Amino acid sequence: MSYNKTASITAETINPKVKIFDYEPCGEIARHAERLEQEMEKSPGSRPFPEIIYCNLGNPQALGQRPITFFREVISLCDNPALLHRDETRMLFSPCAINRARKIIESMPGRNTGAYTNSQGIRSLREAVASGIAARDGFPSRPEDIFLTDGASSAVRTTLRLTAPSHHMHLTYLTMLNWAAFFISSFQINLSMQILIRSQEDGILCPLPEYPLYSASIILHGGTMVPYNLSEDGDWGLEIFEVKRCFEEARIAGLTVRAMVIINPGNPTGQVLSVTNQEEIVEFCRKEGLVILADEVYQDNVYVEDRKFNSFKKVARSLGYDENDISIVSFHSVSMGYSGECGRRGGYMEICGFGDDVMGEIRKVASVTLCPNTNGQILTSLAMDPPKLGDGCFEAFMAEKEEISTSLAKRAKTLVNAFSSLEGMTCNKVEGAIYAFPRIHLPAAAIKAAKAEDVSPDTFYACRLLDATGIAVVPGSGFHQISGRNTATGTWHIRCTILVAEDKIEAMIARLKAFHESFMNEFRDRS
Amino acid sequence: MSYNKTASITAETINPKVKIFDYEPCGEIARHAERLEQEMEKSPGSRPFPEIIYCNLGNPQALGQRPITFFREVISLCDNPALLHRDETRMLFSPCAINRARKIIESMPGRNTGAYTNSQGIRSLREAVASGIAARDGFPSRPEDIFLTDGASSAVRTTLRLTAPSHHMHLTYLTMLNWAAFFISSFQINLSMQILIRSQEDGILCPLPEYPLYSASIILHGGTMVPYNLSEDGDWGLEIFEVKRCFEEARIAGLTVRAMVIINPGNPTGQVLSVTNQEEIVEFCRKEGLVILADEVYQDNVYVEDRKFNSFKKVARSLGYDENDISIVSFHSVSMGYSGECGRRGGYMEICGFGDDVMGEIRKVASVTLCPNTNGQILTSLAMDPPKLGDGCFEAFMAEKEEISTSLAKRAKTLVNAFSSLEGMTCNKVEGAIYAFPRIHLPAAAIKAAKAEDVSPDTFYACRLLDATGIAVVPGSGFHQISGRNTATGTWHIRCTILVAEDKIEAMIARLKAFHESFMNEFRDRS
Repeated sequence: MSYNKTASITAETINPKVKIFDYEPCGEIARHAERLEQEMEKSPGSRPFPEIIYCNLGNPQALGQRPITFFREVISLCDNPALLHRDETRMLFSPCAINRARKIIESMPGRNTGAYTNSQGIRSLREAVASGIAARDGFPSRPEDIFLTDGASSAVRTTLRLTAPSHHMHLTYLTMLNWAAFFISSFQINLSMQILIRSQEDGILCPLPEYPLYSASIILHGGTMVPYNLSEDGDWGLEIFEVKRCFEEARIAGLTVRAMVIINPGNPTGQVLSVTNQEEIVEFCRKEGLVILADEVYQDNVYVEDRKFNSFKKVARSLGYDENDISIVSFHSVSMGYSGECGRRGGYMEICGFGDDVMGEIRKVASVTLCPNTNGQILTSLAMDPPKLGDGCFEAFMAEKEEISTSLAKRAKTLVNAFSSLEGMTCNKVEGAIYAFPRIHLPAAAIKAAKAEDVSPDTFYACRLLDATGIAVVPGSGFHQISGRNTATGTWHIRCTILVAEDKIEAMIARLKAFHESFMNEFRDRS
Repeated sequence: MSYNKTASITAETINPKVKIFDYEPCGEIARHAERLEQEMEKSPGSRPFPEIIYCNLGNPQALGQRPITFFREVISLCDNPALLHRDETRMLFSPCAINRARKIIESMPGRNTGAYTNSQGIRSLREAVASGIAARDGFPSRPEDIFLTDGASSAVRTTLRLTAPSHHMHLTYLTMLNWAAFFISSFQINLSMQILIRSQEDGILCPLPEYPLYSASIILHGGTMVPYNLSEDGDWGLEIFEVKRCFEEARIAGLTVRAMVIINPGNPTGQVLSVTNQEEIVEFCRKEGLVILADEVYQDNVYVEDRKFNSFKKVARSLGYDENDISIVSFHSVSMGYSGECGRRGGYMEICGFGDDVMGEIRKVASVTLCPNTNGQILTSLAMDPPKLGDGCFEAFMAEKEEISTSLAKRAKTLVNAFSSLEGMTCNKVEGAIYAFPRIHLPAAAIKAAKAEDVSPDTFYACRLLDATGIAVVPGSGFHQISGRNTATGTWHIRCTILVAEDKIEAMIARLKAFHESFMNEFRDRS
């Protein structure tokens, strides 16, 4: 393509922040995968693998997960409510879906999905979400506290790359200077940070490894991230003494810690917290007056018998604490769970334990970003208020849901076993969420080779894996693992989704094993 | 509701920027209208009017505009593609819609609307948009230059309030300090500003009155707004000598002007630019190396015989300028036009005349904000590539489209005549878009009364109007009219949508007239 040689807007004259800003390795790998895919389309057989397997992104339906029929029937009817007045509709849609769609349309202002809605979301849909939360927790939930949104944190697929400091061993407090200040569209997290953060002296506790949207948002809003380490040796558990240690250090450093982020089930780490652990966190946050920011987007993704998802709100209420005692924000999305509707951009947050005046301010801020899309709003209400025992379509719905959940549990186990069987690799159990996060003990020669290419060792491994097998994963650097760019003392991981279809997973594992063996043969320590 | 008295997060301790930030009067009036509506639901008959008429917001379907059947049928089928394999579907959907939905689904990766898509939007849908642009303009358009987005600028319904400086007569260059730096979600505008603005020394030409998203976004990204005045006496025309004057002044003040925003058809001002006028703008921007940022979201809303919408790209190409000569970004949305699908959050931008390296940077930035929702992507492709002559549903589609357009033109005329007939009010013709923007020559006593209540005179008028009649409009202050908070030398306007249904407009006008007469009787100058 030719371009405007006399133009004033060139790569040299655009905003340099945009140029400084770079993808986290996730983006780099994803772009490389797309390039390979295009190359293979043009020249079939040009690579030693038949297709790219996208294990880098939590995008279930792109890997063949089927949507829930009831959900799709209802949104289809709501898009085209004229169908509700036709007899023939009964031949194509379940009575269950027709009833639900009718109820939704009748409860919408103007009975239409094409208008801007209340910026907090349509009231009747928030009522459905609140009733679903109440049923889940056994404690009341109020529609006034629900904010429907376009997706949630989990929907952010490309994030910001932390510059140099994060690549060193001693990650302390990240500040504005470490990041390209950049707008991102994760409304839920941004809104919370906007309300909480007044200056760089305000700190937010966040886990490491973390989903990097949190650090990005904290820093974007001018605050300071106070990281606490999850324990890899303890199945990525959250140890309260570690949190307290980090909190005290931050206080001594002059920070006012205002909130604590917990991702449960964990991303990228896959742990599901025990109730005892959650109780410790609630007691700690209550004592110190910290807001709990609970990323609960994987609440429907739990695969082990001995763990169960419990919302932080439920745990707090069970301890007898009401909204006078503790403030909790819970984030959720329809992109994950058994629905996997990433393209729909639906989600909610529940905000409890703030005063009416603070809620007024939150609503004011929320209204600036318009209304969430109606399709996503409806889907969110369905996911939180699905068919019940006694509804005509309950059995069919449950069968679809169970099939997905059972299969995910099976695939999680298969992948963990595969990673664990590889030389120099260890992999904690995937108790929940949709990722395995194995640690790679890389040989010194591999670390040296990565250094020569000026990439982190985990990125080096992930690129080699992609080029050899077509399997795209995310290097752990993107999640701020305990690492060291140029040192052998760091830890190195890859994040691999468990979403590959059952009929493809064995072939994928075979390719992974063959690659890993050859990689180790090339770089194995000869000492 | 009780609240957490011991909590660390109170109205006193939240981020003070959130508290400083305030609604533009639009938000104030809208909230007051919602309060009145709730009050009337609880106590019917408590107000001297039967209902609130929301003329403050461009929200067509909320005021009864019917959606286009073809659009709704296609998105309904795409949500639930299982329908495409059923014979009964032909009884409920037109063959036209079935064919289109099949084509769309078959062109989507994974044949599924539930996955994250390419962050620029699904390729086949961008091809449809590009072919629609080419058909509209008679010049080629490339899918690589199309970015599908969640809505467009037009979708932002609540905007940021300019603090003190904008309320004074001598609005010069707005800078960061005048605004609460605040994230807003208008992706299209923000992306453009992000690329263009390097520092406060970079200026962007914007019209006054303006849709305030532009100033907000410029300042959010640390640039400087360089306003040019539209001529109210010249039917809100854009006079090129005024633009040149502002440009020269900015240059003398040390600014590097990088781009020019043009809203055509105009919001809030309703003018449609002549080709001659557009040619002058293209020549000027080309000569000075300015990017044209063309807000063309009202391209389907033109109501006068002697004006026709022409895209800036078409005008530039007709003058013989290609992408080597001038850079143009065009913004569009499905919220307006005849589709009016605000709740869907669909839109696109076309970016032409940047080099491949700049386009690479733009794609990188775009990918951070995920993918746009699939429902909105599909709808955008339909709006730009609707049924054609020869398609089975062409006649039905055109009939619906024409009915909406004809009715809007009629309502525009009715409202302008009504406003013009009122004492002390003048109103330019609504050539396009969906708003009347009448000027109110307020009596000194009314301005004094507004001052006593510490609101701008136009806000005072709009509040009185709402309380007396239930008609909600936006005070002109929200659009940075030439104004003066505490002076009689400013101009005062209200923005009123032309969307009230035909069967309600006469009653609305009668209420408006009665109110205005009584208002003037109360405040009329007795000199």
